[in-house]
Amino acid sequence: MRTDYCGNIDSSFVGQEVTLCGWVNKRRDLGGVIFIDLRDREGIVQVVFDPDLPDVLEIANTLRSEFCIKLTGKVRPRPEGQINKQMRTGEIEILGTGLEIFNKSAVLPLDWNQENSEEQRLRYRYLDLRRPVMSQRLKFRAQVTAAVRRYLENDGFLDIETPILTKATPEGARDYLVPSRTHKGEFFALPQSPQLFKQLLMMSGMDRYYQIVKCFRDEDLRADRQPEFTQIDIETTFLNAEGVMEITEGMIRDLFQKMLDVDLGDFPRMTYAEAMKRYGSDKPDLRNPLELVDVADLLESVEFKVFSGPATDPKGRVAVVKVPGGASLSRKQIDEYTKFVGIYGAKGLAWIKVNELAAGQEGLQSPVLKFLSEDITDAIIQRTGAQAGDILLFGADNATVVTEAMGALRLKLGEDFDLLEGEWKPLWVVDFPMFEEVDGQLYALHHPFTSPREMSAEELKANPVGALSDAYDMVLNGVELGGGSVRIHEQHMQSAVFAILGIDEEEANNKFGFLLNALQFGAPPHAGLAFGLDRLVMLMTGATSIRDVMAFPKTTTAACPLTNAPSPASPQQLADLAIATVVKSAE
Amino acid sequence: MRTDYCGNIDSSFVGQEVTLCGWVNKRRDLGGVIFIDLRDREGIVQVVFDPDLPDVLEIANTLRSEFCIKLTGKVRPRPEGQINKQMRTGEIEILGTGLEIFNKSAVLPLDWNQENSEEQRLRYRYLDLRRPVMSQRLKFRAQVTAAVRRYLENDGFLDIETPILTKATPEGARDYLVPSRTHKGEFFALPQSPQLFKQLLMMSGMDRYYQIVKCFRDEDLRADRQPEFTQIDIETTFLNAEGVMEITEGMIRDLFQKMLDVDLGDFPRMTYAEAMKRYGSDKPDLRNPLELVDVADLLESVEFKVFSGPATDPKGRVAVVKVPGGASLSRKQIDEYTKFVGIYGAKGLAWIKVNELAAGQEGLQSPVLKFLSEDITDAIIQRTGAQAGDILLFGADNATVVTEAMGALRLKLGEDFDLLEGEWKPLWVVDFPMFEEVDGQLYALHHPFTSPREMSAEELKANPVGALSDAYDMVLNGVELGGGSVRIHEQHMQSAVFAILGIDEEEANNKFGFLLNALQFGAPPHAGLAFGLDRLVMLMTGATSIRDVMAFPKTTTAACPLTNAPSPASPQQLADLAIATVVKSAE
Repeated sequence: MRTDYCGNIDSSFVGQEVTLCGWVNKRRDLGGVIFIDLRDREGIVQVVFDPDLPDVLEIANTLRSEFCIKLTGKVRPRPEGQINKQMRTGEIEILGTGLEIFNKSAVLPLDWNQENSEEQRLRYRYLDLRRPVMSQRLKFRAQVTAAVRRYLENDGFLDIETPILTKATPEGARDYLVPSRTHKGEFFALPQSPQLFKQLLMMSGMDRYYQIVKCFRDEDLRADRQPEFTQIDIETTFLNAEGVMEITEGMIRDLFQKMLDVDLGDFPRMTYAEAMKRYGSDKPDLRNPLELVDVADLLESVEFKVFSGPATDPKGRVAVVKVPGGASLSRKQIDEYTKFVGIYGAKGLAWIKVNELAAGQEGLQSPVLKFLSEDITDAIIQRTGAQAGDILLFGADNATVVTEAMGALRLKLGEDFDLLEGEWKPLWVVDFPMFEEVDGQLYALHHPFTSPREMSAEELKANPVGALSDAYDMVLNGVELGGGSVRIHEQHMQSAVFAILGIDEEEANNKFGFLLNALQFGAPPHAGLAFGLDRLVMLMTGATSIRDVMAFPKTTTAACPLTNAPSPASPQQLADLAIATVVKSAE
Repeated sequence: MRTDYCGNIDSSFVGQEVTLCGWVNKRRDLGGVIFIDLRDREGIVQVVFDPDLPDVLEIANTLRSEFCIKLTGKVRPRPEGQINKQMRTGEIEILGTGLEIFNKSAVLPLDWNQENSEEQRLRYRYLDLRRPVMSQRLKFRAQVTAAVRRYLENDGFLDIETPILTKATPEGARDYLVPSRTHKGEFFALPQSPQLFKQLLMMSGMDRYYQIVKCFRDEDLRADRQPEFTQIDIETTFLNAEGVMEITEGMIRDLFQKMLDVDLGDFPRMTYAEAMKRYGSDKPDLRNPLELVDVADLLESVEFKVFSGPATDPKGRVAVVKVPGGASLSRKQIDEYTKFVGIYGAKGLAWIKVNELAAGQEGLQSPVLKFLSEDITDAIIQRTGAQAGDILLFGADNATVVTEAMGALRLKLGEDFDLLEGEWKPLWVVDFPMFEEVDGQLYALHHPFTSPREMSAEELKANPVGALSDAYDMVLNGVELGGGSVRIHEQHMQSAVFAILGIDEEEANNKFGFLLNALQFGAPPHAGLAFGLDRLVMLMTGATSIRDVMAFPKTTTAACPLTNAPSPASPQQLADLAIATVVKSAE
């Protein structure tokens, strides 16, 4: 129906007749001459309807915003004063000679000139997506997936589909269940990830697998989560952690180069222990120069119990964050930060200001100064490198609280003081513990199929708490882009891990019998990784929510205002599935 | 861990040391020399362990089928008599100099030298997929999806993901429901297709959409269906039927060229009416030369009521299939065919044999000959072009029964008489009726969003039964590869179709309110098509079931013997979802 996209018409078309299809983005009437901006996926072009062509002008006169039209016209240079070099179409305009209206439009329920509520944007998602910023994000996302696919396919990876209707997995967060009509009283589960299937594919010799695949988690939608999200899922045979990291780092580097013309360089590596110590996080944002500095050794014998208690407790920690220029903080501002760390369980936030001496004030200023000898404060100043104008903020408590609270405070201070340096700071975090202990019970830090690093099953059983896993997370700007591990490929190691996790033989067989079974038939060494595609695209496009890089996301309460899903089922449907609702439905 | 794939080692490697990883496909001990065939995804290579290297030989001695190993060795030419030019690796062998066993294997529960039950194959799918025929199919499938993606992406299509958790759709077959935990008593449905979402994407101006996407249908799994299947889903804006057919025909032609080196040529077009008349099917297999020949006009006035009844009934049909060489059919064989057409409701199968006169028998032979004048039999012989040695088989009943029964018989005869000509016979079937009438009620032949051909809403309402839709099906070798249509983009046309289908305003608003709503905001003309990927790959690989081109299919009773899904849910899970099972669970 058309000869080209609106957004592609530039000076090279001058003198040509073109036919375009699209939407009226804006319409102006300047003394009998009608101007419209015509929009399609590729951009916007200016069209003029002239009184010399009264038939066309008459139709043009009826145009309103968002009418869908077909336009024929002649491309000509814009008059001098109207040239806009910022736009590809900014040096030309089209003299409209033919016009057909495909469909009129009612007045839009969204006002693009102001912020609309997210509920309203999702209800009229098809209109929200007409905004160039939104359509460009979906286009960018499609280009990202295409680039990822090409990279992996060129490297011998096969796109293999795994089931969506599958067995419940025990990966912590809750499964979506699907009642079976054929097997009444039984349920499928939607996969939280294709983890076990991709491992089985490696055992079947498929060698290199990838899939860009929907995963599902029925959890509370805090923190920008979605019930369905998309994973770039990768698994390889006969590669170790180093091999997987090389391929996937190469893929992300290639992606940033192609899509954003950014060279990410070689990704540094950091152990989990170092990340927690220096940044109070297993996904440190390295654009933020602030670090946690441990000072417990300096404070063991001070009289101030708030410091000496944690400093002498083997499970305690005392750490300082130095904020350049922070001496200017008011008492009220410090109180705000104290409240902030309180969220993470910190009972207070001691501080020392290093004031400019020229201002005539005391050099060091702090409510806790009286508890500390000059030797000790000197040592702290020296270790933190604090200079005039800075503030030192102290966390002292059990190690978990200090690490979490000061890690979060570090991020907040970085934002508040506008300290972020550089645009993109990727890294690998490695050497995670195999297990974390909560109330005396061990849990897998990644998942129970993760291999320990260079350890026999016997060594692992002897010291599970100290064991490191062969896992690796890719972190970018404080966001976990992806995580993976070398998997267990030996049956006795898998059994040992299940035993450590308190999964008895019956439960193991019931839940993972097929995996344990599969391990006896020449299972190969294998390893993989999964990226969160939504988050990756969100970061790359500068969007602030994953909802803004999905075509049809759910609300934060897991509903779809557009289609009105979920909704009550009919009695007949429920009867067919042999289920009943226990609460009264909302119908 | 390795330098190359097993299957890639050819003469060009002679003299090199290689390291390979894979599985022991076969092991032979020939007088103290151990031979193994080592297998990976790319193929099989022969390895020799020589008594000159006793350390390696000792390990090699412990190898059994399906052990997973790492092998280092030197590539050398095979001795004269052992060369196998059929295999890429057939001119070389590897002298094993280093050997590491990654994992031993128990004796396999599948015997690859004989047919295993499908239940057993699915239970040990990871072993079944080690068979080269299976892994090659998955590899082929991955190459097909990659080629499809590239073709569409090069043509400006954007891969856009649509939701899996969505609202129940009314497309005939049954929905899988998913209880919502957040909105208790309410349900999501898994999509039977992304139909409405792709239409909304066109209304949002995304212009060209594609997705290779899972779809779900909870129906009885007769006839090689699966609860989840994969669709190549395509939608375009500002293109008519011709435009969509050109793009998608080009895509399939390109695919066959690249993957199979087959030139499908230009696809012929056939109207639905002609397909039903000549082939008794809306997806005719054009490799089969047999056709239905209508002869009602010749039989209107014969005394034989079985013929004259349907011949004079406006809803009746009398059609003949001529089978070359069919005069040799025995009475018993004819009885079998009579039973066969009985499945489709035909009450009998009249026949006329045209015997070889040389054999001294009567020329025409038939129980019905006595009812027909010579003029009439001559006319039938002439119209069907029957020659000595042929048989004519007659269907006479109401048109639906004759068309279905003779259409099915035609296919069976084509197989039985080995009549299929040519390897690939694609075509487009077009000009479908908008509606089909069942018991006085009209149903959409495609779906209720299909546009009629060149008709106003008023004309459609005046004569719905005679209306043709702007739909098109791509058929290959008697299989419907894909189907699509121009969609309705005008609100009053969509309302008219709903009204004709007996969907009242309330029901329409409840089910499709968002679509009707969307049509008022400048909805563009749009059209699309969806291919069944599983069927396409099945045809292209020569597999006999779609299960053989899926990594982890379900059984014909929609269960997964590998993971044991579906399975009972825990009481806690059900309580969380506020549902109860009505029958006793199988637990």
